[in-house]
Amino acid sequence: MAEQAAGVWGAWLAERARVRHRRGLERAARGLPEGALDLASNDYLGLSRHPAVVSAAAEAARLHGAGAGASRVVTGTHPVHEQLEARLCAYTGRRSALVLSSGYAANLGLLGALAAPGTHLVMDAHCHASLVDGARLGRAEVTVVDHGSVQAVAAALQSRVAPRTAVVVESVYSVLGDAAPLAELATLCAGRGALLVVDEAHTLAATPGGCAVAAAGLADAGHVVVTATLSKALGSQGGAVLLGGAGADALREHLVNTSRTFLFDTGLGPPAAGAALAALGLADEDRIARLVARSAQVHDTLAAHPFTSARVERGRGAVHSVRMDSPERAAEAAGRLGEAGVAVGCFRPPSVPDGVSRLRVTAHADHDADVLDHALHQIATTVAEVHA
Amino acid sequence: MAEQAAGVWGAWLAERARVRHRRGLERAARGLPEGALDLASNDYLGLSRHPAVVSAAAEAARLHGAGAGASRVVTGTHPVHEQLEARLCAYTGRRSALVLSSGYAANLGLLGALAAPGTHLVMDAHCHASLVDGARLGRAEVTVVDHGSVQAVAAALQSRVAPRTAVVVESVYSVLGDAAPLAELATLCAGRGALLVVDEAHTLAATPGGCAVAAAGLADAGHVVVTATLSKALGSQGGAVLLGGAGADALREHLVNTSRTFLFDTGLGPPAAGAALAALGLADEDRIARLVARSAQVHDTLAAHPFTSARVERGRGAVHSVRMDSPERAAEAAGRLGEAGVAVGCFRPPSVPDGVSRLRVTAHADHDADVLDHALHQIATTVAEVHA
Repeated sequence: MAEQAAGVWGAWLAERARVRHRRGLERAARGLPEGALDLASNDYLGLSRHPAVVSAAAEAARLHGAGAGASRVVTGTHPVHEQLEARLCAYTGRRSALVLSSGYAANLGLLGALAAPGTHLVMDAHCHASLVDGARLGRAEVTVVDHGSVQAVAAALQSRVAPRTAVVVESVYSVLGDAAPLAELATLCAGRGALLVVDEAHTLAATPGGCAVAAAGLADAGHVVVTATLSKALGSQGGAVLLGGAGADALREHLVNTSRTFLFDTGLGPPAAGAALAALGLADEDRIARLVARSAQVHDTLAAHPFTSARVERGRGAVHSVRMDSPERAAEAAGRLGEAGVAVGCFRPPSVPDGVSRLRVTAHADHDADVLDHALHQIATTVAEVHA
Repeated sequence: MAEQAAGVWGAWLAERARVRHRRGLERAARGLPEGALDLASNDYLGLSRHPAVVSAAAEAARLHGAGAGASRVVTGTHPVHEQLEARLCAYTGRRSALVLSSGYAANLGLLGALAAPGTHLVMDAHCHASLVDGARLGRAEVTVVDHGSVQAVAAALQSRVAPRTAVVVESVYSVLGDAAPLAELATLCAGRGALLVVDEAHTLAATPGGCAVAAAGLADAGHVVVTATLSKALGSQGGAVLLGGAGADALREHLVNTSRTFLFDTGLGPPAAGAALAALGLADEDRIARLVARSAQVHDTLAAHPFTSARVERGRGAVHSVRMDSPERAAEAAGRLGEAGVAVGCFRPPSVPDGVSRLRVTAHADHDADVLDHALHQIATTVAEVHA
C-alpha cells in the first residue's frame, strides 16, 4: 500500500484480523473435502451434478450464450428466462414470476421496491442477511420483531398506522431450521391489509407440495409474495420473486420498473437459467420424499445419540443444527469431521442470530441410509470429543 | 389480492404505474430483436457466444456442477474459482482477487466491508447503483462530489478528518461513457492516506492493457482497489474485487470474513466461472484493438453526421451516448431502430445521472465495419425523425 494508506487502513485491517482471531471467528473460502460426504451444501436434491441439469446448462450456453450480455430491460432477457418464469409458476401454482441474478438480488430488489416512504416493514429477528440488507436499502420504517412470534407481528401491525405494511419472514430459517407459521401469518396480514413476504430459499423444491406457500394453500393469495433461490434445491444459481392472485401482474410490473437489482444488474446467465429449468422437471414428489426421509434420519439419529441428544435442534426443512459450546469448538469439530470425510457446516457469529455457534447438518435426497447413519455417529462422537 | 391488501397496495401500485406512464418511463424485460445488429449489450468482445467460452461453461458444469451448492465459506469454493482468481491476477497484474456472484454483489460486498463506523466514503455523483447501494448498506459517512472533479474530491478529503477515507469512482462511467482521471486521483489519495476504489465494469478486458488501473501504471498500487464484472467484456456472469500491493492479502482476508454478499450468497456458478476463465484467454490485445477501432467508428460517424453531431457524447470506452429531447423520443427512436434491425440502448431517468434521456450505442469488436456504418446512419436518420 502507499505509505499513508498502509498506515491507517493497514492498521485497521490488522486490528480487525486480531479481533477475529481472538474470538475464534476466522473464515476461509472452502470447498467440499475430496471424497467427503456432503452434509454441508444446500444442494438438497443432488441436482447440481445431475446429468440432465448439467446438459441443460451446456445447451442454454450454446443457444443463448454464456452470459445474458446486459440488464434484462436492455437486451438481457433471453427465451430461457421466460421459459423458466413460466415453469416456476407451473411448479408453485403462482401466477407470475420474475427471475433475478441471485436469491440475494431477489430479496434486495423486492424489499427495495416495496420499501418506499410510507411503507412499514415488520421483520422477523432471524431474517437472512439479504432481507435485512433489502430493508436497509429501502426508505421504509422497519420494525424487527421477536423470532417466530405471531403475537409480536400482530402487536407491531397494531402499533403503527403506516399507509402500507409488509411482514417479512422465511418459510424455513437457514440456521435453526425452524418454520414460520405461514397460515396464521397470512390470515393476520389479510385482516390488516398487509403483504406477507415469504423467503422460500430453503423450501422451494425441498418441501412436499413444491413450496411452503403452496403447501399452506396460499398459492393464489395475492397478498403473499414469495422470494426464492435457484441455487439450493434446484442446484443452479439465481433467484426469483413469485406472485399470486389478481394483483400479481401489477406487482411484477412494479418490480420490472423499480427493482434496482433487476434494472442495474446483468440478467441471470443462460446456463444457470437452463439448469434451473431442467431441475424443476426433476424436483418431483418422489425426490422430495427421499429428502424428507433423510432429513428425518438426520434429526432422529442425532436426537437418539447420547452425545448429541441435548444439543440437536429439529429443522422443519432439510437443515438440522447441533449447538456447540463455543465458536472454537464448532470450528474444531467441523475441521476434524472434514478430515474424516464428513463435511458439515460450521455456523458462528455473525451468521447465527442468537450468537450460539452450531454445526449445521444438511440432509440430501441422494444419500445412502447406511452411509448417512455412519456419518451421523461420527458427528456425535466428534461433538463429544471437542467438548471433553 | 386479499380485499384490504388490494386496497392499499393495489392503489399504490396503480398510482406508481400511472406516474411512469405519464412521464414516458415505462420499462419492460427485453431481448435482442431477432436478427438485429447488437449495439446495445455489453458483450463488447462478442465472447458470450464464442465456442471456446460456451464449451468452457459446459465443461465447468460437468466437472463442478451447475451450481456452487453453498456459500464460498461453506463448501461453495470450487477449483474453478481459484483458477479464475489466479487468472484475473495474471491478466490485470494485480496480486490478489476475490470472485463474487455478480458485479453488483462485488460492489455491495466491498463497500459494505470498508464502510464501518469511522470510514468516510467520497463518491463521484455518477457512480453506479451498485456502488450507491453498497455505500448505503455500510455505516460510513458518505460525501457525494461533483462528477469528474478532482478538485471536488480534494475538497471533500480536506473537509473531514475521518479515521479512514475511501474515494469511489468508475474507470469509465456507464451512461455518459467518460473516464475518471485515475492517475491524478491515485496521487491525491496516496497523499491523503485514502483508498481509491475503481469500478472497472466497463474497462476490464475492454481497454488496451487489459484494465484501466494497469494501463495507468497502478496495478501494484496497494491503495487502489478494483471491482469488476465478468458479465460485460468477458461475456459471462459474476464479479470480482482485484487487489494489489503489499496490503492485498490482508484486505482480501477482510473481505472473506466480512463481505455480506460473499458470506451469505451462494458462490458463483461453476459454468459462469469457467466461461469467464476461458474468456480471459481470448480477450487479448488484438481483440481489444478491434473494439477500440469500432468504438472510434461509432463516435466519429455519429459526430460527423449532421443529425447527430450536436447530440453525441464521446465515450472513453465502448459506449457512446446520443442525447435526446425527452424520454418519449428516446423510447420512440429505440423502438423504431429495433424494428429496423438495429438494437440500441435507451437510457431514461432514473438510469441517467443528469436526467437527460439518451440512446446508448455500444461498440462490439466483432462487427463488420460496413454493416456498422449502415446502422450508424440509420441511427442518425431516426434521431432526426423523432425530433422532427
